[in-house]
Amino acid sequence: MSISQLDAFRGGDKLVRIVGHRGARGHMPENTLEGFDWTLSMGIEALEFDVLLTKDDVPVIVHNHHLTASTTRDQNGKWLPDLEPVISQLTYEEICTYDVGGIDSNSEYGKRFPDQMFLSNIKVPRLTDLLNLITQPRFSRAVLMLEIKSDPNAKDPESTRKKTVEKVVQNVRNTGLSHRTILHSFDWEILKECQRIAPDIPTSFLTQLPENDDDVGEDSSSNFGQHLQESASIPDLVAQAGGQLWCPYIKDLAAKDIERAHQLGLLVVTWTANDINDIENAIDLGVDGIVSDYPGRVQHALLSRGYGWLPKPLENQEEFPRFPGAAAL
Amino acid sequence: MSISQLDAFRGGDKLVRIVGHRGARGHMPENTLEGFDWTLSMGIEALEFDVLLTKDDVPVIVHNHHLTASTTRDQNGKWLPDLEPVISQLTYEEICTYDVGGIDSNSEYGKRFPDQMFLSNIKVPRLTDLLNLITQPRFSRAVLMLEIKSDPNAKDPESTRKKTVEKVVQNVRNTGLSHRTILHSFDWEILKECQRIAPDIPTSFLTQLPENDDDVGEDSSSNFGQHLQESASIPDLVAQAGGQLWCPYIKDLAAKDIERAHQLGLLVVTWTANDINDIENAIDLGVDGIVSDYPGRVQHALLSRGYGWLPKPLENQEEFPRFPGAAAL
Repeated sequence: MSISQLDAFRGGDKLVRIVGHRGARGHMPENTLEGFDWTLSMGIEALEFDVLLTKDDVPVIVHNHHLTASTTRDQNGKWLPDLEPVISQLTYEEICTYDVGGIDSNSEYGKRFPDQMFLSNIKVPRLTDLLNLITQPRFSRAVLMLEIKSDPNAKDPESTRKKTVEKVVQNVRNTGLSHRTILHSFDWEILKECQRIAPDIPTSFLTQLPENDDDVGEDSSSNFGQHLQESASIPDLVAQAGGQLWCPYIKDLAAKDIERAHQLGLLVVTWTANDINDIENAIDLGVDGIVSDYPGRVQHALLSRGYGWLPKPLENQEEFPRFPGAAAL
Repeated sequence: MSISQLDAFRGGDKLVRIVGHRGARGHMPENTLEGFDWTLSMGIEALEFDVLLTKDDVPVIVHNHHLTASTTRDQNGKWLPDLEPVISQLTYEEICTYDVGGIDSNSEYGKRFPDQMFLSNIKVPRLTDLLNLITQPRFSRAVLMLEIKSDPNAKDPESTRKKTVEKVVQNVRNTGLSHRTILHSFDWEILKECQRIAPDIPTSFLTQLPENDDDVGEDSSSNFGQHLQESASIPDLVAQAGGQLWCPYIKDLAAKDIERAHQLGLLVVTWTANDINDIENAIDLGVDGIVSDYPGRVQHALLSRGYGWLPKPLENQEEFPRFPGAAAL
């Protein structure tokens, strides 16, 4: 039986899936190969991360549309000045001269992740670096929640979207990982393009209601929230748009919406739950999965109720991962 | 120039060393090979951990003198009952049937480490497993703060101490790692035995004043505190006993004692600093090193002052580790 990427995000009886956010940002530098490798080694099978295109059209894994001062050092080990270089104006080779292994303890953003390990000599990864990582047999169960970011500086947004999706899908197909990838975005126009270019890859619709605040130190997602009115049923909009997953912001969760999403056959995976009360609330409300910077925190919240995050292995199933999580309980 | 284990614990100008406690217990299951490997991979070069002898005289890495219910599952994945099997009454083979990859979220001990990743199928390591790990070239800078625990059930404490130290030193010598090991204990009788059997390996004297509380869910160290009177200068006692390191409990730190220790040529490494105020206080007081379950938290406390935890690499130094910590700043 081949792996279905959707199954990896499907909850069940006492089962809530865990998705590592940018790897596991609470422990490891975000969106780095080192963070992804560690998170997967911990038995967390799904990764959420962000992809943008460089000037020379290389899909790279980075959250903001610029190299962020609080997480990027130059060749001399100095934090970047506030005039942050824009990803779409740098070649991949230029981006490789920067170090993204640490977070600036004195920045507002850095203060959000006080336990993150501080590394050096870590490069922004290409999408292909991560794809190659998960083709290794030890990560044969890994699945990707691949977020495609919009370029707010794009002169021609339509052709930029098209080119970005084409390049991303090309990378995924070249490594034979379409069946282990979900395409994920706040920008529903991007998702429409994904469905056109790769109708076999499921799409995941991120939402955040406009009244909630943006996270400190990060690009805003609220540009793409204007079409969401509180009067409309968001799950219905997602289903009408052809989505298979709906990813509501943790502060926007409401029981009736989750119920409606399940009626419509959508999977509900909420982002980004780090506060223990938010995690408990999401479990109470019956989401399928939780995206978190602290996957261990979600594991413990689940275990304390007798829940798990991975399905029990089938009888005779070979090559079950070394760290089967709650499956042994 | 060969590595000196003492240099790895020596602070300096804007330099405070970080020691990973039982690996990095805040992130990873304690005293596991997986936790040690990860901590060293993060550029933390010194590990603190605990060694006891099995029934068949194998030095194993485990903190309490029994397999602890809150961190140990049986072959069926069930947490141990409160009647906890005693290490010195189990063979190494018997100990291998238990899984120490997780912490029970519902236990008092588990609640202390809510972010720790939950693994399965993880065995208690032998001391030789860790020694072999650090003989790998990628960990050529790693040093060990090897704590030898007392067996409170020993019928003949003197011969038990002697046998334990002999076996430990044999393991260390067999892997050629005497110059990368420090022998460390609360039990000063054990340390006397260490000095007799291995005069070339430095000794480190752990202390905790009797008025401070024990940590929840762990074997007490206070049995060995009775000879410490507040009137006596503990650094003087350590120096008289032939110690090279003094390891005071974080709540016992006092400026005059640290100053006196330095006058006596002792290195001062404090345990176990997890609370940010304790970490800041230890740095203020000028300790050489800090033992922590959250090495990243100590890194950030140091970085925010412009301090580091590793000395700058020498010119022309080859094979500097991939993650040089603050050295690049």
